[in-house]
Amino acid sequence: MTLEKEKTIMDHDTVSLDDEGNAVVIIDQTLLPVRTELIRLKTAEEIWNAIYLLKVRGAPAIGVTAAFGIYLLAKSCKEENYDRFLANFRKNKEYLDSSRPTAVNLSWALNRMECVVTEHPGASVAELLTLLKKEAEEIRDEDIRVCRKIGEYGLTLLKKGDGILTHCNAGRLAAVRYGTATAPIYLGQEKGYGFHVYADETRPLLQGARLTAYELLFAGVDVTLICDNMASAVMKNGWVNAVLVGCDRVAANGDTANKIGTSGVAVLAAHYGIPFYVCAPTSTIDLSTPTGADIRIEERKPEEVSEMWYRERMAPEGVKIFNPAFDVTDHSLITGFVTEYGILRAPFAEAFRKLPGKREPENRD
Amino acid sequence: MTLEKEKTIMDHDTVSLDDEGNAVVIIDQTLLPVRTELIRLKTAEEIWNAIYLLKVRGAPAIGVTAAFGIYLLAKSCKEENYDRFLANFRKNKEYLDSSRPTAVNLSWALNRMECVVTEHPGASVAELLTLLKKEAEEIRDEDIRVCRKIGEYGLTLLKKGDGILTHCNAGRLAAVRYGTATAPIYLGQEKGYGFHVYADETRPLLQGARLTAYELLFAGVDVTLICDNMASAVMKNGWVNAVLVGCDRVAANGDTANKIGTSGVAVLAAHYGIPFYVCAPTSTIDLSTPTGADIRIEERKPEEVSEMWYRERMAPEGVKIFNPAFDVTDHSLITGFVTEYGILRAPFAEAFRKLPGKREPENRD
Repeated sequence: MTLEKEKTIMDHDTVSLDDEGNAVVIIDQTLLPVRTELIRLKTAEEIWNAIYLLKVRGAPAIGVTAAFGIYLLAKSCKEENYDRFLANFRKNKEYLDSSRPTAVNLSWALNRMECVVTEHPGASVAELLTLLKKEAEEIRDEDIRVCRKIGEYGLTLLKKGDGILTHCNAGRLAAVRYGTATAPIYLGQEKGYGFHVYADETRPLLQGARLTAYELLFAGVDVTLICDNMASAVMKNGWVNAVLVGCDRVAANGDTANKIGTSGVAVLAAHYGIPFYVCAPTSTIDLSTPTGADIRIEERKPEEVSEMWYRERMAPEGVKIFNPAFDVTDHSLITGFVTEYGILRAPFAEAFRKLPGKREPENRD
Repeated sequence: MTLEKEKTIMDHDTVSLDDEGNAVVIIDQTLLPVRTELIRLKTAEEIWNAIYLLKVRGAPAIGVTAAFGIYLLAKSCKEENYDRFLANFRKNKEYLDSSRPTAVNLSWALNRMECVVTEHPGASVAELLTLLKKEAEEIRDEDIRVCRKIGEYGLTLLKKGDGILTHCNAGRLAAVRYGTATAPIYLGQEKGYGFHVYADETRPLLQGARLTAYELLFAGVDVTLICDNMASAVMKNGWVNAVLVGCDRVAANGDTANKIGTSGVAVLAAHYGIPFYVCAPTSTIDLSTPTGADIRIEERKPEEVSEMWYRERMAPEGVKIFNPAFDVTDHSLITGFVTEYGILRAPFAEAFRKLPGKREPENRD
């Protein structure tokens, strides 16, 4: 593939509807970093498989894929009767929702799309399709706006030349544009901040090595790939000024579920006196979950650890790698949430309750 | 391969001299866990390559290989004149010493063997060969005794049913028998302690997945393989009562160099209130190195991280794997050294100086 073609693809939104409105177009993330390819999803099975097989992953990107996907399926529905159209819509919704049961944004986006239909009883199919397309585009546009805001607020926490460590991929490949944890990095890059980013490879599925290192390298950011167990040495060397990570679900007290290993990075950051920021669209803050103990943790298949997902190169050509063989052990967790409404500091429960659209769960006594 | 043949090999010392004294016999660790094979090293090139290519690794095992190896090379030397015999010996020593420049035990064992020759000027080659063989066997026997003692002392720190986390391979495959960090585990296994061991896979070369998980599983120990970034979640779940690791070099103040990631495990253990023990033959305690800052850290090639060393399965069949997809981040280093002379507690500098054979470095003022 020519660099130009690769550039065209990487300038593309991670998820989009094609100009004719006939296909959801995604960057196939299972091929990265070996091949950069757009694929077109048209049928329910193609959309389901793309989510199930991680061709598209990252909570925001999955939500947008599902929204555009169910719009496409509604469009290809032959029913003109409202009730039969709704029944067909719900069948497709249930099917897509089964592709990754634990991805919160999947249900969330599909529910929003369903509301468009249920809130317009008796509307013509043509009207519904117009409204559905608009809602899917709004879900996409919101993601872009929210990530951009997170980037602007996050950048206020950083200074020129800072070293930033990140875990997993909360990058543009996990969203539509900018990403969450990478948004301050991309905005800083535009403004010449000259950040030095350390990307944990993030075993077992290597999203850090395959995706974060790839997208940052492609954008011209100075990025160094490390194995997860090297974060302590990198921090001890004084190379990290801030940790930025994404999140999958934030409990009411601020406990945060994110990719395996995030809690370890937070403990290390606290030990070395480095601020640890969670970049969180407020949609991931769940006031109905009191603490982290109430969050169910998905356990995945052992083969992800015991066998290599990739049999080829696992990181982009040309990425810098710091690879010390040993480290030195001597004698010693969330600084803030970066949201689209600004930086939230402790006590978090209080800060969360003041957010637009967040209300305290009803008293259950 | 039949299980019986595998058992015969795994009952074998990791490194030995064959009965006829014509070859160094090692378990080829680059083939594990896919194939369990003994290989015979006879020439200088074969011995050099075995160390360089990590067919034998682990500081104690490398030392014993070098000792038996240089004995073999001395034996095949055609010189009968002492001076020419010594010159040939030194040439071989220098060559073997270049196979892995940073492995301390390599130089240490080769120096001990050279002393046998230099301390017997004018002795006949036949006499020297007898003494050299005896010294190599003593180096091996010392390793076995020291590891056994570490096991006995280490076991006093543990109780039945304990969960134990270990990093990298400080196991029998890194030594001759027992290993260092695994010695208390093997002795406990003999006595029915029913330990539950968590083995960090230890990226990038996966010594934990390929070697520790393999040897413990083979010995019937209950072992669970985890990715390095899962240690925090496993500790947080309350599954770990003690951390046992090996070490490559211990500075006079107790700062300890060991496989990359060890410092991170120590920070986590301190955070979760879990004792962190370094299993250390006193030969690795280096009083001439004041602190960890004086230890040079080897940086290895990037390809170890970016490309998979193994293109097949990376962990033994049947090993249990705990594979959570996320963890929960909420709001917070060496407990003791287990040596052949007992458990050393802080202040370490003082404890080290009281060890047999350790004296304070001379005052350099």
